[in-house]
Amino acid sequence: MDETVLLTGAKGSVGTAIREGLADEYDWRYLFHNPPPFDPDHPYLVGDVSDEELVAEACEDVGAVVHLAGDPRRDAPWDSVLENNIHGTKVLYDAAIEAGVEKFVFASSNHAVGHFETDRKPELYRTDDDFRLDGTEFPRPGNHYGISKATGEVIGRYYHDEYGIDVCNIRIGNLTKGHPPKEYERGQAMWLSYRDCAHLHDRALQADYDFEIVYGISDNDRKYYSLERAKDVLGYEPKDNSADYHFDGTPKDDA
Amino acid sequence: MDETVLLTGAKGSVGTAIREGLADEYDWRYLFHNPPPFDPDHPYLVGDVSDEELVAEACEDVGAVVHLAGDPRRDAPWDSVLENNIHGTKVLYDAAIEAGVEKFVFASSNHAVGHFETDRKPELYRTDDDFRLDGTEFPRPGNHYGISKATGEVIGRYYHDEYGIDVCNIRIGNLTKGHPPKEYERGQAMWLSYRDCAHLHDRALQADYDFEIVYGISDNDRKYYSLERAKDVLGYEPKDNSADYHFDGTPKDDA
Repeated sequence: MDETVLLTGAKGSVGTAIREGLADEYDWRYLFHNPPPFDPDHPYLVGDVSDEELVAEACEDVGAVVHLAGDPRRDAPWDSVLENNIHGTKVLYDAAIEAGVEKFVFASSNHAVGHFETDRKPELYRTDDDFRLDGTEFPRPGNHYGISKATGEVIGRYYHDEYGIDVCNIRIGNLTKGHPPKEYERGQAMWLSYRDCAHLHDRALQADYDFEIVYGISDNDRKYYSLERAKDVLGYEPKDNSADYHFDGTPKDDA
Repeated sequence: MDETVLLTGAKGSVGTAIREGLADEYDWRYLFHNPPPFDPDHPYLVGDVSDEELVAEACEDVGAVVHLAGDPRRDAPWDSVLENNIHGTKVLYDAAIEAGVEKFVFASSNHAVGHFETDRKPELYRTDDDFRLDGTEFPRPGNHYGISKATGEVIGRYYHDEYGIDVCNIRIGNLTKGHPPKEYERGQAMWLSYRDCAHLHDRALQADYDFEIVYGISDNDRKYYSLERAKDVLGYEPKDNSADYHFDGTPKDDA
């Protein structure tokens, strides 16, 4: 792909994993919410994703969008996720359609399905439990943030069906750098390493699909999210596994 | 049920079918968007469903809510459905939880799944096509209004999981009085008669369930929405069928 790729929410943890892992792979254009405290290696804009004028400018001559922007807090108040996550996503889709963007990768979240864990924990965090979510299920958000992410998926479904834009929703697990979340069984079952995160988004930008909902986790021994669609459709080949680390986050084998 | 039942959007077509069909069955409290041009047979309030103070008052001593309020236009602009349908539904759920409401019946819509018809019409409107939606599917809204209705379902899923309130989402088809929509194949496949509409909402107020998504249509010969959950879980026994009418809406048998 030799066109510009817009990355919104470029300063967040997912954005950082992508910028660090794929810096030279794409002709990036970053959208930061605030002026970045570093010198970005690609052109960038600053502002709200719900700012129609700004977003129209951000989408000019763009071939694909990776949309991460929004209030990332698990306990974000409703008014904020309504404006930034739900309305902001709709504004960005409108601008993308207007600009002729062909591919839209949306950062959804494990919180869109957080309540599937109700009555099932902690068993489902363990390898002897075979419960799996595969991305076809009706959402069960665990919080208002999760409602906003599930709604973002539904919005994407509409824009795909209505306008033909290719949409990949990635329900991102627990992204941490270097090692899985420490002493957190749930987080280890949905760990996503930085390099797997970058690789997964690379695949989402390269692969052919229509509308997908995939889970964004590493290939952990213990997991309750299926990686089947990510592997089969996107060609995702994760390299990390939380089982290679002790419960406290230290690697089992330093070799 | 001997407690007050709150009916929002009481002047719309669904509200009218319910008020006419179940006037004496419940201790209704109506919420109208504007002062009604008639003299209601039960107590009522007037205002916006997104008005927190009003809605808190409306939910006082209420045992169940039938929530129909919102912008009903298929081509409603985004800002309106965002405020009235999405935000308004969240505000009402909050008030219902605060007031201890036990049951919440939400008027969803065929438009939440309108894009399942893409590439399938007109075959799926016909009796020799066996395609069926059953309510477990991930939504495919046909317009912004449909996005708002699918989001209302997701919001309900959250409030059920988080607070235990029983939630029944009814994806209402094409409600018309007296006869099916005239010369409209799609509308006839998803016809909902007034008496079936009232009966279905009666069942949704009486039956035991946790979280349901059912389709609200009459027992039409030609249909692509399954009535299985409505019949099995709610005890819905529809009496009408669009096949008893000619394409122009006149009955086949006047007897």
